Amino acid sequence: MSFAAPESLAEQIAKHLAQRIIAGELQSGERIQEARVVNELDVSRGSVREALLILEQRYLINILPRRGAVVAHLTEKHVTDLYALYVNLLTMVGAEVAQRWRDEDLEPLYRLWKQMQRYAAEGDQALFIDSGFTVMHEGLRISGNDYLRQVLEDLQPAVQRTYALAVRRYPAEIQHALQFFADLLLAVQQRNTAVIPSVVQTYGHHQTGIVLAALAEETAECA
Amino acid sequence: MSFAAPESLAEQIAKHLAQRIIAGELQSGERIQEARVVNELDVSRGSVREALLILEQRYLINILPRRGAVVAHLTEKHVTDLYALYVNLLTMVGAEVAQRWRDEDLEPLYRLWKQMQRYAAEGDQALFIDSGFTVMHEGLRISGNDYLRQVLEDLQPAVQRTYALAVRRYPAEIQHALQFFADLLLAVQQRNTAVIPSVVQTYGHHQTGIVLAALAEETAECA
Repeated sequence: MSFAAPESLAEQIAKHLAQRIIAGELQSGERIQEARVVNELDVSRGSVREALLILEQRYLINILPRRGAVVAHLTEKHVTDLYALYVNLLTMVGAEVAQRWRDEDLEPLYRLWKQMQRYAAEGDQALFIDSGFTVMHEGLRISGNDYLRQVLEDLQPAVQRTYALAVRRYPAEIQHALQFFADLLLAVQQRNTAVIPSVVQTYGHHQTGIVLAALAEETAECA
Repeated sequence: MSFAAPESLAEQIAKHLAQRIIAGELQSGERIQEARVVNELDVSRGSVREALLILEQRYLINILPRRGAVVAHLTEKHVTDLYALYVNLLTMVGAEVAQRWRDEDLEPLYRLWKQMQRYAAEGDQALFIDSGFTVMHEGLRISGNDYLRQVLEDLQPAVQRTYALAVRRYPAEIQHALQFFADLLLAVQQRNTAVIPSVVQTYGHHQTGIVLAALAEETAECA
């Protein structure tokens, strides 16, 4: 495995480890040993340390005083708390975008929407999920609030981890997500800020339920 | 200056630099040179690098590709965006606390409230501001949402920076803040979740205005 510019080395290492946590290869409570990552990726200890700080900031690991880095646990409470915050922030993005979009902003959103439909039809889960988050990033760009952008970018990997878990078990969920994006984009296009909270909350509530069901199944299997 | 346990060295260095930014000693756009911090505090380069990453996560500095660490700019847009997010999250904390508090949670809140009244009467701005944030931390403890806690803890120094700027210029603001906390604690005690959004938003709107006025004065003086 080799890493190249332009992202910082620490960021690349963080993304690589994040991918493994999201895919479920590295599991809750599993230790991530600095020295092992240094050897496997042939990178400096300093870069790995920085990467672990980035992953902690993104809620994927905890760095414990004497134990080092451990993949963050995912309990019912984690999922409920994470989605409560995520839904609140997405509602804020949706409302801002509905108020602020200009004509030139709609075309990229429609293009992403077409892409999501295609990935859904082809059953490509990973690309579908990625393009869903790309819609969020596009919304953050339109909203222009850099604080909100950083907070949501930091939360994204943890949300992606729970969502990937749910979709692995319930692939039909993609159709549900597609309908949510259709409703959301319509509300945005109509500048219907009044309806956005309920659109986002309804879907957020549904998604929380699906993730909790997937988590309960997984826990039962591992027990 | 010397640093001791139990916080990590990086965290201590970060807090020290944060204090200087909040107090206005290090100003918008000013460079923070790694080597200089290493010499001044007699600490390792690695610890300073980690401290700078922490400060970037807390919105106090930007780390730029070739220029290194620079104190984050504070424009009208920064203040407006920061408070839009902060007010939204504080509303969430307030609503959660109003729903969740148990009998044993009220006593620490009242004690903090008494403390704030005393600091206000004594005109001790720094301690007053600190105890205001302690109320927030107490609220986060009661809400129990660790994601919300981390996001608000990361935002706090940037908010504190703007608020310290405002209070330095308008010391009478403390009375306004005191009234806000009185209204908020009453709504929480009455479990009146319906009124919390407007209490927080009204104060947030006022505070945004005061910070912007202080910022405009400062900018005019420096021009």
